[in-house]
Amino acid sequence: MSGVRVSPERLWSRLMEMAEVGATPAGGSNRQALSDDDRAGRDLFVGWAERAGCSIELDPVGNLFARRAGIDADAAPVVLGSHLDTQPTGGRFDGVYGVLGGLEVVEALNDHGIETQAPVEVAVWTNEEGSRFAVSMMGSAVWAGVLALDEVRAITDRSGVSVGAELDRLGWAGSAAFAKPLRAYLELHIEQGPILEASGSSIGVVTGVQGIRWFRVTLEGFPAHAGTTPMDRRRDPSRSLADALSGLHEMASAHAPQVRLTPAMLASEPVSSNTVPGCITFTVDLRHPDAAVLEGLDAELRARVADAAAAHGCGHRVEVINDCAPVVFDDECVQAVESAAQRCGFAYERIGSGAGHDACHVALTAPAGMIFVPCQDGLSHNEAESIEPEAAARGAEVLFHAALQLAGTAP
Amino acid sequence: MSGVRVSPERLWSRLMEMAEVGATPAGGSNRQALSDDDRAGRDLFVGWAERAGCSIELDPVGNLFARRAGIDADAAPVVLGSHLDTQPTGGRFDGVYGVLGGLEVVEALNDHGIETQAPVEVAVWTNEEGSRFAVSMMGSAVWAGVLALDEVRAITDRSGVSVGAELDRLGWAGSAAFAKPLRAYLELHIEQGPILEASGSSIGVVTGVQGIRWFRVTLEGFPAHAGTTPMDRRRDPSRSLADALSGLHEMASAHAPQVRLTPAMLASEPVSSNTVPGCITFTVDLRHPDAAVLEGLDAELRARVADAAAAHGCGHRVEVINDCAPVVFDDECVQAVESAAQRCGFAYERIGSGAGHDACHVALTAPAGMIFVPCQDGLSHNEAESIEPEAAARGAEVLFHAALQLAGTAP
Repeated sequence: MSGVRVSPERLWSRLMEMAEVGATPAGGSNRQALSDDDRAGRDLFVGWAERAGCSIELDPVGNLFARRAGIDADAAPVVLGSHLDTQPTGGRFDGVYGVLGGLEVVEALNDHGIETQAPVEVAVWTNEEGSRFAVSMMGSAVWAGVLALDEVRAITDRSGVSVGAELDRLGWAGSAAFAKPLRAYLELHIEQGPILEASGSSIGVVTGVQGIRWFRVTLEGFPAHAGTTPMDRRRDPSRSLADALSGLHEMASAHAPQVRLTPAMLASEPVSSNTVPGCITFTVDLRHPDAAVLEGLDAELRARVADAAAAHGCGHRVEVINDCAPVVFDDECVQAVESAAQRCGFAYERIGSGAGHDACHVALTAPAGMIFVPCQDGLSHNEAESIEPEAAARGAEVLFHAALQLAGTAP
Repeated sequence: MSGVRVSPERLWSRLMEMAEVGATPAGGSNRQALSDDDRAGRDLFVGWAERAGCSIELDPVGNLFARRAGIDADAAPVVLGSHLDTQPTGGRFDGVYGVLGGLEVVEALNDHGIETQAPVEVAVWTNEEGSRFAVSMMGSAVWAGVLALDEVRAITDRSGVSVGAELDRLGWAGSAAFAKPLRAYLELHIEQGPILEASGSSIGVVTGVQGIRWFRVTLEGFPAHAGTTPMDRRRDPSRSLADALSGLHEMASAHAPQVRLTPAMLASEPVSSNTVPGCITFTVDLRHPDAAVLEGLDAELRARVADAAAAHGCGHRVEVINDCAPVVFDDECVQAVESAAQRCGFAYERIGSGAGHDACHVALTAPAGMIFVPCQDGLSHNEAESIEPEAAARGAEVLFHAALQLAGTAP
């Protein structure tokens, strides 16, 4: 990496130091949202940010912004960020990398004495993972107006503790405005998938995020004695299940490679091995980057389930339990990332994100974009999550150049 | 019913009186094995049996025999029986009908002053249902030597109370010998299936009981992110499940109508709607009256599961978790039942039993047979279980004539 501005060593050592907060025996981290470990992680970050000259502010849902002033005090900031909370058996990079990558940009600006026109802020969104409090991307959702603050404060964990109680206990319920105007938002993240690794690209220029729709499918038969009921007198939902799963996978194949279709959470009632199931349920996670195609797939899914049920005398229900529209990132942000990758001389490709990120919410109110770096075997949400130090440095370097272009320098 | 010997009114009123012991709000009975209600039910029966002149004995596992003496005091008895324990939300007839039907035969012999060569006994087997103590047909299994007494005494219910402790508390651990020689055993039972009702037969002459083999099937994929993992890089066990279920139902169709195949207890791991399942499990209840055919179906099941797994890069395991060989009832017993049905002028048919009964165990050591009567909609193990009073009387009448033929009268 010629002409490198960020410090690969500082970035890597901070990633490793942060990983020790809530470290797990298998080499990952456990800093679930609004826990004492989450606070300890943030405190570590805030110490670094303050020593880098940043001022800190919190909004009412605990989203934290570390601000490096710009030449134009009134300009909308360029915000770089992600999250510090983790899955219970999380890795060292998911989220953390975007926050410490943003901080590294601030450090590099300081190192090189660069003043930007617009302020540069590093954002730490509250509860991205949704493990302890079961709403993922919670902080950015409230910030962007997708969820109401009151609603979110009332959410409780398994022991009955609420988000609101934890925000108050931690002193994280600040007063910064939600959805303030941004010049741009950039989120640096590990890919969490195998595409960049397979193609040998160092950088993924993220063009958008797939639309995600979750369905709960119920197939209703009639519970009957497994021994005494002749086969031709049964309404057995396992027959409809076979047809439905075959049909849904056939649909996915017909829309390859952009569609993602995942049946999961299979269950049957009654829990008895000698009774024909009265009911079989499963979920379907359906994703596509194009909203119109996703609508078409939704309709086809319902038709295939209905046919599979009817073919064996079963009833059915299809409910949508989660729905996130596809996100297309801002042209200028995507261009800025692509230009930065070119300028650095890194192999890159345009890529869609398969997973949701805080950037999806921010994109509702501000120009936003993302940068991906490859991670080993595409593994994430796993303590074995791993990236190369060089890969981490390349991503931060691209973030630096893209942020600099968007924030502008002295005329 | 011309020349009827049994009393339809007495039989029906006793069935209804017994149903009040442990009566449930929805019209069924709850007399789980070795409970106070089970004792109350037995006490009611013993009172009737003693007033009919029977002597009572218990064996060490609580099986109860009410004996009406024969002309030949040394002759092996003809035993008529079933069970008085019920499912937690059991019906009024499952088991009870066979016991009170047997008692009605004794009453009819008394009413008509008939002496039999062989003694006639009414058997009440302990814990046929296996609801509270999870071994079904428990008493008859110990009697026939299929299970050891010590092993069975150690079985506990959910609150930790053992079979042994309950047998001692109730005073049911008697000293009668297990597996004593029997002239014949006949069990009168509701069909618990829809076949007799559909064909209009009043009597099922039961020729045997299907072999039952339970399998646990595991399909192993690789857990992966539902959004970031391209479809062609997955090992998704839901694809293997679709193929396996289709294949197994295809196999069942090819062996219609005698095979019974029931996939049940479906579950997947992890319990996450946005992760490709790492593992899907289900059970298969497979039944056939012919042991050789059942072996062939076992092999085909394994082959089809293996193919379904391999086709999608998944692993698999097939374990047998329960195995009961088919039972073919004794020719003389079957003939005696058939002759009795003919003599009574009832529409009858030969039929296999889809469910297991105490007669399966008794058949291991003695000539045994069964008589079925139709039940409404084939419904059983349900508080709504229902039979017509006339159907109940017909079954008891056939039992009477068959028992009389087997026990023999004065020369």
